[in-house]
Amino acid sequence: MKLLSLLIIATAASPQTAPITVTAPPRTLPQSVSAKLSPSDRALFAKLMSVGLEAAWSAVTSEGYPQCFINELTPLNTDRRIVGRARTIRYLPNRKDLRDKIYASGPQLNYRSAEEAQPGDILVFDAGGETRSTVTGAMVTTRFVVRGGSGVVVDGCMRDIPDLAAMPIGVYVRCGHASSVSPIMMSVDYQVPVRIGSVTVLPGDILIGERHGVLVIPASIVDKVLEKAMQHDDREDFQRRLLLSGEPIYGVYPTLNDANKAKFEESQKQKKQKE
Amino acid sequence: MKLLSLLIIATAASPQTAPITVTAPPRTLPQSVSAKLSPSDRALFAKLMSVGLEAAWSAVTSEGYPQCFINELTPLNTDRRIVGRARTIRYLPNRKDLRDKIYASGPQLNYRSAEEAQPGDILVFDAGGETRSTVTGAMVTTRFVVRGGSGVVVDGCMRDIPDLAAMPIGVYVRCGHASSVSPIMMSVDYQVPVRIGSVTVLPGDILIGERHGVLVIPASIVDKVLEKAMQHDDREDFQRRLLLSGEPIYGVYPTLNDANKAKFEESQKQKKQKE
Amino acid sequence: MKLLSLLIIATAASPQTAPITVTAPPRTLPQSVSAKLSPSDRALFAKLMSVGLEAAWSAVTSEGYPQCFINELTPLNTDRRIVGRARTIRYLPNRKDLRDKIYASGPQLNYRSAEEAQPGDILVFDAGGETRSTVTGAMVTTRFVVRGGSGVVVDGCMRDIPDLAAMPIGVYVRCGHASSVSPIMMSVDYQVPVRIGSVTVLPGDILIGERHGVLVIPASIVDKVLEKAMQHDDREDFQRRLLLSGEPIYGVYPTLNDANKAKFEESQKQKKQKE
Amino acid sequence: MKLLSLLIIATAASPQTAPITVTAPPRTLPQSVSAKLSPSDRALFAKLMSVGLEAAWSAVTSEGYPQCFINELTPLNTDRRIVGRARTIRYLPNRKDLRDKIYASGPQLNYRSAEEAQPGDILVFDAGGETRSTVTGAMVTTRFVVRGGSGVVVDGCMRDIPDLAAMPIGVYVRCGHASSVSPIMMSVDYQVPVRIGSVTVLPGDILIGERHGVLVIPASIVDKVLEKAMQHDDREDFQRRLLLSGEPIYGVYPTLNDANKAKFEESQKQKKQKE
Amino acid sequence: MKLLSLLIIATAASPQTAPITVTAPPRTLPQSVSAKLSPSDRALFAKLMSVGLEAAWSAVTSEGYPQCFINELTPLNTDRRIVGRARTIRYLPNRKDLRDKIYASGPQLNYRSAEEAQPGDILVFDAGGETRSTVTGAMVTTRFVVRGGSGVVVDGCMRDIPDLAAMPIGVYVRCGHASSVSPIMMSVDYQVPVRIGSVTVLPGDILIGERHGVLVIPASIVDKVLEKAMQHDDREDFQRRLLLSGEPIYGVYPTLNDANKAKFEESQKQKKQKE
Amino acid sequence: MKLLSLLIIATAASPQTAPITVTAPPRTLPQSVSAKLSPSDRALFAKLMSVGLEAAWSAVTSEGYPQCFINELTPLNTDRRIVGRARTIRYLPNRKDLRDKIYASGPQLNYRSAEEAQPGDILVFDAGGETRSTVTGAMVTTRFVVRGGSGVVVDGCMRDIPDLAAMPIGVYVRCGHASSVSPIMMSVDYQVPVRIGSVTVLPGDILIGERHGVLVIPASIVDKVLEKAMQHDDREDFQRRLLLSGEPIYGVYPTLNDANKAKFEESQKQKKQKE
Repeated sequence: MKLLSLLIIATAASPQTAPITVTAPPRTLPQSVSAKLSPSDRALFAKLMSVGLEAAWSAVTSEGYPQCFINELTPLNTDRRIVGRARTIRYLPNRKDLRDKIYASGPQLNYRSAEEAQPGDILVFDAGGETRSTVTGAMVTTRFVVRGGSGVVVDGCMRDIPDLAAMPIGVYVRCGHASSVSPIMMSVDYQVPVRIGSVTVLPGDILIGERHGVLVIPASIVDKVLEKAMQHDDREDFQRRLLLSGEPIYGVYPTLNDANKAKFEESQKQKKQKE
Repeated sequence: MKLLSLLIIATAASPQTAPITVTAPPRTLPQSVSAKLSPSDRALFAKLMSVGLEAAWSAVTSEGYPQCFINELTPLNTDRRIVGRARTIRYLPNRKDLRDKIYASGPQLNYRSAEEAQPGDILVFDAGGETRSTVTGAMVTTRFVVRGGSGVVVDGCMRDIPDLAAMPIGVYVRCGHASSVSPIMMSVDYQVPVRIGSVTVLPGDILIGERHGVLVIPASIVDKVLEKAMQHDDREDFQRRLLLSGEPIYGVYPTLNDANKAKFEESQKQKKQKE
Repeated sequence: MKLLSLLIIATAASPQTAPITVTAPPRTLPQSVSAKLSPSDRALFAKLMSVGLEAAWSAVTSEGYPQCFINELTPLNTDRRIVGRARTIRYLPNRKDLRDKIYASGPQLNYRSAEEAQPGDILVFDAGGETRSTVTGAMVTTRFVVRGGSGVVVDGCMRDIPDLAAMPIGVYVRCGHASSVSPIMMSVDYQVPVRIGSVTVLPGDILIGERHGVLVIPASIVDKVLEKAMQHDDREDFQRRLLLSGEPIYGVYPTLNDANKAKFEESQKQKKQKE
Repeated sequence: MKLLSLLIIATAASPQTAPITVTAPPRTLPQSVSAKLSPSDRALFAKLMSVGLEAAWSAVTSEGYPQCFINELTPLNTDRRIVGRARTIRYLPNRKDLRDKIYASGPQLNYRSAEEAQPGDILVFDAGGETRSTVTGAMVTTRFVVRGGSGVVVDGCMRDIPDLAAMPIGVYVRCGHASSVSPIMMSVDYQVPVRIGSVTVLPGDILIGERHGVLVIPASIVDKVLEKAMQHDDREDFQRRLLLSGEPIYGVYPTLNDANKAKFEESQKQKKQKE
Repeated sequence: MKLLSLLIIATAASPQTAPITVTAPPRTLPQSVSAKLSPSDRALFAKLMSVGLEAAWSAVTSEGYPQCFINELTPLNTDRRIVGRARTIRYLPNRKDLRDKIYASGPQLNYRSAEEAQPGDILVFDAGGETRSTVTGAMVTTRFVVRGGSGVVVDGCMRDIPDLAAMPIGVYVRCGHASSVSPIMMSVDYQVPVRIGSVTVLPGDILIGERHGVLVIPASIVDKVLEKAMQHDDREDFQRRLLLSGEPIYGVYPTLNDANKAKFEESQKQKKQKE
Repeated sequence: MKLLSLLIIATAASPQTAPITVTAPPRTLPQSVSAKLSPSDRALFAKLMSVGLEAAWSAVTSEGYPQCFINELTPLNTDRRIVGRARTIRYLPNRKDLRDKIYASGPQLNYRSAEEAQPGDILVFDAGGETRSTVTGAMVTTRFVVRGGSGVVVDGCMRDIPDLAAMPIGVYVRCGHASSVSPIMMSVDYQVPVRIGSVTVLPGDILIGERHGVLVIPASIVDKVLEKAMQHDDREDFQRRLLLSGEPIYGVYPTLNDANKAKFEESQKQKKQKE
């Protein structure tokens, strides 16, 4: 549902009662991210922050991507939305020969991904759901935040959970753990397709994370998705006003009846004229 | 434990220290519900809002209903109590022939149940624990709130989670999801017995939802349950005061010793005289 | 990460932007605990409240105890740290002959453990992960709080969850339930080694509980662990400052390069001279 | 894969080696079922016993029923196929008021369903996955077998497992248990749509149960499904012969190249002429 | 259901058809056990091998022990019954200080329990459901078999699974693993009450293990249980004969109607006279 | 435990009783595999078929690879051992853009891996544990068997389970399903490191699959592992004979006492002289 504005509207049926809140307050992009974004990304991220998550889901699905929502992880902060671009890291169960070979060829990928992160990036760690170890912690994430990082999505665990929760980013994990350098996992691949819950995430995907999960939008369709979804939001705003005014659901949602449809089209016309 | 009053009492044993908080602050029924209740329901709901949940559990169990507590779901808001009457909907995995037949005969049951809801109702969706799809979302729930709805209990998922969390109702789910009209589930039965977690819920059952779960009280025994439970609460209030004054647990809880029993009976007598 | 101080530091790279928060605010021991501690425990508990949890984990692990972190339970309050000494109770599935024998020999162990608790104790209940019943509730815990108890860790459930959440202690559970005296479990052993999640807890162990879990420190190594961990914290504070000033991660973390190392050793020298 | 015949064919590439077995031996309907079937059912059941399960799955799915396969249960005998018609029973967690009402109105539904079973029926119990109790046992199933019953599918448990495994039927369960009349469940509905795993089963559905699960075919499409599937089987038999003769997979499966397609069509023509 | 005899009886209703098998073949105690039993145990074990498991369950439950059946484990051989006396061992997650202390005081408890086992014993290992390690393997179990051991029940894993499956005992596990001396578990207690699945097992308990689980009978009630259960079996044998002869279930099971009751009592009288 | 020979030895303590079986019968490599192996592989595979699985586990672990055993999957045939070389395929949740790109570049990887398989290969599919879909079925596996394939290990499902169970290979799966071409998964990588359960498998790894799981041996250490393990087996054979002759466990296992050690070394000397 659209987050652009907080609707607190008195119901027509009982004018003397207090207004009823039926939408969440709007979220804003943290300054540590917004200050570093390019102008084009600032415009894109503003739309991503305000679009209805469910409207965007419908648009992504109708474009042929029904497996696009991660709801197997838990956010550390339930009152935040995060948006950003995926930077992926793949972990596997530890294995000496492969670990030696990979770690000899450069820094571990949690360090590298934080160091190479661009403003608005979201680190996406596929750790296979492992809950007895962590992929990274607050120190590395501090560097990531300084670089303008927007969030971290881990199919597994992180450490330093209270510190992470205080940072101006969004963090999604299976749960937390206190372990440091892992004897049971290793980072093996960087910027490859990964599995998070039941969704495949590609480097460069656009993510929107809310309290109940993370929507994954292929970069190539993000404009189309936003356009469709914002139209969807306009209609839902109109429908919500009708419902708050006391109208029964049948002529309003999911389909407007002819009278309401006419009113909606009129309101859209007026809105466009104002712009 | 009783929610009628917030007990902040200095312990006698260490009078110089600050008082210790040992009970949750009292909750109140949202105005969107209370304003629409009938006078008799207003009285009933006031008692349900203040009775000890565990005291009520004991009373329900002692009436022969040990399987009465749903603790498999998560509330969106942990600091709310909801109370209300169950209105049930049963979902099954999608199946074209049955879906076509049912949906031809009238509106989908999430719409219908919201539209027919009475003030103080709680919608109870049996979705078999499905976490890859949702039963309904914020738009339909807005209509439900306008009608005076009190809560939604879903053995499955809802969408628009941040909006639902902002509404003046209580919502219990397995988790959230962003999906809209489901290709994998369908509503099949309305106002029939349903399974939520390990409890059977019947239409008209009285529900009390707290942070840790939902108590299901058959309507026919609700008066008896409240009477028993409120006596239980009176004794526990007395016991709590003794414990806060520094008395050891053995003569106080679970059974009062003779001296304390006499004091309690005296206090009850005085309380009745005041009424 | 160290909780001693809340670091809000402007990054050197972008002096005009607001400072970035990257650490959690410091926690304090509740007065109900601290007022009752012996002087030596007060000093110990102060260190336990401020040490970095992950630093302590590393120290415990390096002493030969890799299975020392419980992350299978959920705290009722996510913004609290608890510290204290384990007092253990073991539950088993109910069985008439054993129950009769044990309950004939003295009070149930949830009563006894609360009554015998020393200031700063943490009750540790091994209930085998059972989620259909509870080990104890707010009344007994009130007595425990009056005696200076610090927390309750249950591999199972408790009742009266909202009241427990309001008390000045930390509570960890699988989930909540409303049940009182259990027909399916019984307390059988007191102050014996118990299994909580995947960790063995012994009576007298020192516990540190954070949002993401509980660290278990054998009492015999607690001084060594604290010393090691606080040195670790000093280095991480220094590293964090470097990262916040915009330095790349490679010369800073996990290993300082030679230049930074020299600076760190200098800063440590100065710190010691001040003491 | 088609069960009509057991293919043991020597590979052309290594004529001197023993033939390789690549299909399961054919199954037969037990005499206790076949002797009681009507002539039309005997013909239908013969086809159901020999059709390829996966071919039938493809046909059911292509008719618009993708949620048609139950793989959450375990068969007692892994070397049997069962086929039959669903007779459904719905269980719910026990609840005194509803149980009293239902059990006063007639026999419990496990007795009734066994007594009313028609030859070739499969009893389908929706017990919500409960594993601490059973829906029925060997005594009632004996009556069911005498009446020509073909199988029992339980989303839950049965008792008397070794006896059931010895009977000439197929039994699918979550697991076994020894409990008799359940204090925690009750039968509430008969011949209504039920949920088994992730599939909705309707009374009268045609079921095919194999080692790895149960295929659910709506009765209205069973003829179409069988026709499609048997054509599928013919092509797969042809493809399997090519593969066993040593041909590479690319021109053979999943799509025949032109040369092989011509050969297949020729073989089909000859087959029809023989009939 | 009673295993005393294999019932293969032609149904009266269709005399020309083959008889229907509705009971499992009888099991026998392996010679490695029976040869070493005392005369009194030989008599007891013979009864335990032939009594109906479900009849015994009913008797144990009616004596006040409803939590008496373990169905969380899997037997290596599905066509065996095992009977014997529990010898219990408790494992906990590894912990250096406790392990050093315990292992310094004597042999590890898997060795000790095998060495001290008496004929007909069943080793019962509470390993907390751990599946990444094992409690013991074929070598130690060989010693146990030589001493007349009857079975091994592990809430966890064993190694050498194919060898164990070939031995003349019954083995119940969560699953198998290949690990030897465990770095993650240790044996801590011997002959104490333990938790296996959801059942408390005491040293000396009488166990009956079938394909679907293990029944736990307190030693003090075993004679009563056997007497009750064997009467139950007599009635069920009679009922089964009626059902196989084609009688409807209503007058036969679970309650005999008056006519059938009279017949049954007559048959019992005759049976006693023969003895 | 060593599978080289089937030990059925009478115990010395009770010479009149029948011998006790304590080891599984030896397995043999199927002719479809052995006939196609190179001479060097034939020698290697013979050793792999006879070495003790647990002895090999100990050797692999002592070489620095403790995460080497997959016990999360189930074999279709419990009485088979398979050995072979890993050929890996990685699946991810379906996603149109990536699927189109990959499938345009060549055949799906289940076809390709079967077609390119070398004698003695084991196909290893990482499907992320998905149980609602399959990676491949009997038709493709027929081609694989014709090429000398030895087994298939799937962290996910296969179809055509009864046919696969009849083939002369070993198949490990989470469970079976009937689905064909998957709408929810796609093959994305070939011959890369994959995750199966909690183990990383590399192309070319040597696998030994038994009833209770699959041991993963890095190719570079296989000779060392076999040598160590076969020495281990020799000692265990000696120990087993002592135990079967009635010796107590303490001087025999895990460590031989001095007298037994001397006997063992003597027996080894004689064995070498014979060779």
